[in-house]
Amino acid sequence: MTTPLVSPEGRALDLPPRPTPVIRPGEFRFAAAGLAHGHIYGMTRGLLEAGATLTAVWDEDPALVAGFCRAFPQVRPARCLDELLDDPALALVASAAVPADRCGLGLRVMEAGKDYFVDKAPLTSLDQLAAARTAAARTGRKYMVYYSERLHSEAATLADWLVGRGAIGRVIHMEGFGPHRLGAARPGWFYSKARTGGILCDIGSHQLEQFLHFTGAERACITSARRANYAHPDHPEFEDFGDCTATAANGATGYFRVDWFTPAGLRNWGDGRTFLLGTEGYIEMRKYIDITAPEMVENTVLWVDGEGEHRFNATGQVGCPFFGRLIRDCLDRTETAMTQAHAFAAAELCLQAQAIADRSAAQAAPGRP
Amino acid sequence: MTTPLVSPEGRALDLPPRPTPVIRPGEFRFAAAGLAHGHIYGMTRGLLEAGATLTAVWDEDPALVAGFCRAFPQVRPARCLDELLDDPALALVASAAVPADRCGLGLRVMEAGKDYFVDKAPLTSLDQLAAARTAAARTGRKYMVYYSERLHSEAATLADWLVGRGAIGRVIHMEGFGPHRLGAARPGWFYSKARTGGILCDIGSHQLEQFLHFTGAERACITSARRANYAHPDHPEFEDFGDCTATAANGATGYFRVDWFTPAGLRNWGDGRTFLLGTEGYIEMRKYIDITAPEMVENTVLWVDGEGEHRFNATGQVGCPFFGRLIRDCLDRTETAMTQAHAFAAAELCLQAQAIADRSAAQAAPGRP
Repeated sequence: MTTPLVSPEGRALDLPPRPTPVIRPGEFRFAAAGLAHGHIYGMTRGLLEAGATLTAVWDEDPALVAGFCRAFPQVRPARCLDELLDDPALALVASAAVPADRCGLGLRVMEAGKDYFVDKAPLTSLDQLAAARTAAARTGRKYMVYYSERLHSEAATLADWLVGRGAIGRVIHMEGFGPHRLGAARPGWFYSKARTGGILCDIGSHQLEQFLHFTGAERACITSARRANYAHPDHPEFEDFGDCTATAANGATGYFRVDWFTPAGLRNWGDGRTFLLGTEGYIEMRKYIDITAPEMVENTVLWVDGEGEHRFNATGQVGCPFFGRLIRDCLDRTETAMTQAHAFAAAELCLQAQAIADRSAAQAAPGRP
Repeated sequence: MTTPLVSPEGRALDLPPRPTPVIRPGEFRFAAAGLAHGHIYGMTRGLLEAGATLTAVWDEDPALVAGFCRAFPQVRPARCLDELLDDPALALVASAAVPADRCGLGLRVMEAGKDYFVDKAPLTSLDQLAAARTAAARTGRKYMVYYSERLHSEAATLADWLVGRGAIGRVIHMEGFGPHRLGAARPGWFYSKARTGGILCDIGSHQLEQFLHFTGAERACITSARRANYAHPDHPEFEDFGDCTATAANGATGYFRVDWFTPAGLRNWGDGRTFLLGTEGYIEMRKYIDITAPEMVENTVLWVDGEGEHRFNATGQVGCPFFGRLIRDCLDRTETAMTQAHAFAAAELCLQAQAIADRSAAQAAPGRP
């Protein structure tokens, strides 16, 4: 049974049904370990909606644990990380630790025989990447990444469905804008290059992952990258701007820009946008806010093809099938949600982009005028 | 007297009055020579609206001349180019000849003691650029360029006014999307690399000119560039895609993408867009069509700052002051419309971008999969 989604001018999409829980209650148990980034809430909700059972939580900061327990009253705080790792009933550990700590935790999780689901960026150095690849291969466990700007976005789900049906022909190019609001209260690690890996490694990871996915490429190379601190001299290591061009092995081209300049007047944290150019049309996703709409709207998908201009709101229409697929992959030892090779390929591209930007800093990271 | 332009949520802009003719009838006479590109119509209309008098036209193709005379019945067809160049009453010659021929014509115009107003791209090689610079310096005549995507766009006029009033703080970054419709009937020269200079030289010129202008930079360097023929194997020299990153001398960063993939369903020839990121907000121009509006709308300006999200339609509100300023500059020997240095700097950047893209073709101009 499908629900047609209809654009204002009458274009109807016969969408597949929204995803539903893929397992029975209690069949797949997970814990949260490492709550430094708020993404852990989205990761947890996605797993819960797909049918997983949240049993335990751990972080070295009791305040973060207390906040998490208020949001998810069913969860039990663990006394230490080993209590989670030693629990044979746990299938997966989800983490949004500080980026530089994510890989070390993941290695312990995999060595304990559990799958790992980690916030982006999944790691911050090539040494970590090599260790993660080796451990994943040896243990057979998964090191999956919460690339939320695609995996937890109904706009992206809808765009993905359109692209898969040939709605814009061959995807030859992608642009991504990833503006973020800095806000007032950020922890110290947020401003440390060593702890975040830099802006291209951190929030750039969403973009390069989408580039590989939407262009259908297994590999790509970074063709240019820049980072800057335009307006935050009080935090000299902080990068408030970054951008990058990449060319996929199949010939598709990409560009993205990430920044921390969302103005106070925007009704959400960032006007995140993804543009797909195809040989037969184009798509734009306005994921978190559509400033062309008077009402507060997320998940706008604009699509132009040979027939006309179409506008859809994907909210509540298509869901986020990633989470159910991830759970099934863990149970069935399949790779329907995301291949391990893709997760690591995206991570590697981010490290390469950051390295190129760092090397060209003299030219591309201008100071204040 | 100013007319307030008000956004839907109530933000009012006290705009300056629309430009009016800057001279008396007959005070400034011009001719059109070289009609290969339809831009000559826009160039002519802009000059006429600012008060100039169109007297004569010449092209080697009588069909193009006949079409021009139908649009502008006051114009007299010249028997040859020299008839225009020898006419002491003519102050300026406007041309949209084939790009590769534009400089040669301009040199003759300047040597004849007249100012030259040429369609973008104003020239197609570094040798031509050197000759034009030398001739402009020696003759004291102007070699001005119709960078229409800024100069003949009320969205750009409004954005310019906003930026000048500090509406988004310091402009640190710009993106430009320049999609174009290929259509069916294109003359042979259109597909010749030697005649157009390539996609970055040709339609990329709009973008790099805007980058210099909106970031307030006199100089910039190209940091990466790519061109491709993704889907037109029947025209092997044709480039249907190009993109480029540039860094301005003042530290601002830029990216643009140009292409020939406007789908048939779009209600105009291209969804041209310019994005300005500032330290205190951002602006988007949707110059030729706003696909988020049900009605056919050009010149949408979206602006987000510390106060909120604002949407304006600039059509009929602000005009295009460039043309009147150009006429006054010719009469007064000033540089209020555009400096000669800027016109040439933008042209030089385009040639550099094209050269970089051509050199990296093995990597960045992928074939079909």
